[in-house]
Amino acid sequence: MTKSTAPKDAGWPAPPLRWSSDAGGRLEILDQTLLPAHETWISCRSAREVYDAIRRLAVRGAPAIGIAAAFGACLGVIERRPATFDAFLQALKEATALIASARPTAKNLSWALERIWEAALAARGSAARDAEAAILAEAKAIHKEDLAAGRALSKAGVGLVPNGGNVLTICNTGALATGGEGTALGVCFAAKAAGKRFRVFACETRPLLQGSRLTMWECAKAGLDAILLADSAAGSLLRTGRIGLVITGADRIAANGDAANKVGTYSLSVLAKTHDVPFWIAAPLSTFDPSTREGRGIPIEERNPREVLEFHGVRTAPAGASAWNPAFDVTPAENISGFVTEKGLLQPPFPASIAKALGRAPSPPKTKSRRRT
Amino acid sequence: MTKSTAPKDAGWPAPPLRWSSDAGGRLEILDQTLLPAHETWISCRSAREVYDAIRRLAVRGAPAIGIAAAFGACLGVIERRPATFDAFLQALKEATALIASARPTAKNLSWALERIWEAALAARGSAARDAEAAILAEAKAIHKEDLAAGRALSKAGVGLVPNGGNVLTICNTGALATGGEGTALGVCFAAKAAGKRFRVFACETRPLLQGSRLTMWECAKAGLDAILLADSAAGSLLRTGRIGLVITGADRIAANGDAANKVGTYSLSVLAKTHDVPFWIAAPLSTFDPSTREGRGIPIEERNPREVLEFHGVRTAPAGASAWNPAFDVTPAENISGFVTEKGLLQPPFPASIAKALGRAPSPPKTKSRRRT
Repeated sequence: MTKSTAPKDAGWPAPPLRWSSDAGGRLEILDQTLLPAHETWISCRSAREVYDAIRRLAVRGAPAIGIAAAFGACLGVIERRPATFDAFLQALKEATALIASARPTAKNLSWALERIWEAALAARGSAARDAEAAILAEAKAIHKEDLAAGRALSKAGVGLVPNGGNVLTICNTGALATGGEGTALGVCFAAKAAGKRFRVFACETRPLLQGSRLTMWECAKAGLDAILLADSAAGSLLRTGRIGLVITGADRIAANGDAANKVGTYSLSVLAKTHDVPFWIAAPLSTFDPSTREGRGIPIEERNPREVLEFHGVRTAPAGASAWNPAFDVTPAENISGFVTEKGLLQPPFPASIAKALGRAPSPPKTKSRRRT
Repeated sequence: MTKSTAPKDAGWPAPPLRWSSDAGGRLEILDQTLLPAHETWISCRSAREVYDAIRRLAVRGAPAIGIAAAFGACLGVIERRPATFDAFLQALKEATALIASARPTAKNLSWALERIWEAALAARGSAARDAEAAILAEAKAIHKEDLAAGRALSKAGVGLVPNGGNVLTICNTGALATGGEGTALGVCFAAKAAGKRFRVFACETRPLLQGSRLTMWECAKAGLDAILLADSAAGSLLRTGRIGLVITGADRIAANGDAANKVGTYSLSVLAKTHDVPFWIAAPLSTFDPSTREGRGIPIEERNPREVLEFHGVRTAPAGASAWNPAFDVTPAENISGFVTEKGLLQPPFPASIAKALGRAPSPPKTKSRRRT
């Protein structure tokens, strides 16, 4: 893994990761743990390096994790230079098993690896080099489709943003969290582009401060008026009546509409309901998990307690103190006004609207038809 | 202002401030901004030094602020060495005006200064030295009464703590926040002393981490089983059904029971209500403000945005970012199960139970009778 500073031509919005074919291939990732102080790109040449980057949150955000995982699986094959299809499949199997274990909650991770796996099986009978090219093409397609989905869902949500009002969000759901377009924050960028005037209130998002470090950074780059607040101040803010929309991303959405997202989202949903503020979730269909019936089936990652006990390596709690550090929580469907997707707005009853949107989604039928070839 | 390390005999619980008569008099304050890394005592010899200590949160917690303010007013007189009663009163006037402006929300601050002022007026006709002695005696009485109130209210709340269960709290409400006994955390200490077995979940309390730095420190010293969590994780925790009591302190309680406390308390009250968990506030009667009819009349301090934008002097948000940093919020009476006070448990309807408790409280009649002398 090598490091470099941002290229001079990095525009905005820009993907937080990019594939380079140089010397066999590498995945370049903007190291989000160093933002906003440093814009440093890391260069991953193996599945293990991508696994590490996902695990330590150098790349984070469900859609971006999915894309990184897809390219990481390809690197797991490329680094082995398999001579036969069987060796190719074995290398892919090991790479996907490793990367799948990086983080448990984001559906996009397993979703992307399944697509890579299906592309590999569809290439059965090919030479190893051709199978490798097939999965790399699939990874590129996943990235491209995510950009298109982000553009479509961002536009679909513009009507929700209160003109002359205020929007509350948590964590980071902009370009950085995705292939480069964003989800909840993408809706805000699209609303600004559509001429709406509004202010974004960004929860700082403890313990890793994605709101403070990443959302405020993206808003500044996009020229979006934004105010940071401690997560615990969101209740008073919602009580003022000044917030017209709460919008967040998601890491996994169950078939009934229960949605896992950054810890704190559930509290926001309860407070939004208490104060009659619309609560929307913006996510591409790749985040929906029809095989999980309801929220209680979603695995919730518990991260190292040190993230709460320390700050930037400085101990804040006393020695010997224990902490509970769930990275996500589940917002029940009844607290959610609707979902903003690339297929438009999904409204209750969610089991029906979600099934309908997924039925029309390209990936499940495509996967099935490939299996038949 | 001079600094020293903790005395060897510092026991537990111990007052976070103490008066020393050496060389005219000084107020020694355990600097809570340096906990838990350093136990450093600062020595204040002037009203300005006490004002600074309150303002920068070296001493914090409504009851402790009240006690510090009382001694600070005395120091404002002592440092001037007034020769006449009029000079004494002028010095006191300036000192109380300064200290009253340190922080706006805690009722105990103005309540204590009013008591000092009444003691001064009651000494009219005395020599300046005697008037000085009278207000110093009143400051000592305020501290002593707070210790007694803390002991009484802690015992009064023991029955609320679920044996074999879990308690959730925010900010710091132990010895450090008071004259040395505590409020909400005092109830927990008393419950432990009474043989109850339970665990404390402590919200870290952004932005200044009083939960992480102070509550976890006090729990460790007291041998109380405690788990730290990010403020935003409290929602999931309450949703698990494992919390049997939410208990917090308060900075000012209006006549109708609306209560201002550390920002985030309101969210906890909404979440507790949603999950049918009892939500209690523990506070001495000196925190109740019968002259403020309801919560909207309570001034809410907004502190420097840098507390949210930075951490320990390290910038976390991008340059140029703005933040909203209210230090408190108001929990409406309807979200509060009751108040734990030195006069026992106050239950709804609060306007009646609060008025009754305050009517029996010693300070208002005492003040009135002094006015008549």
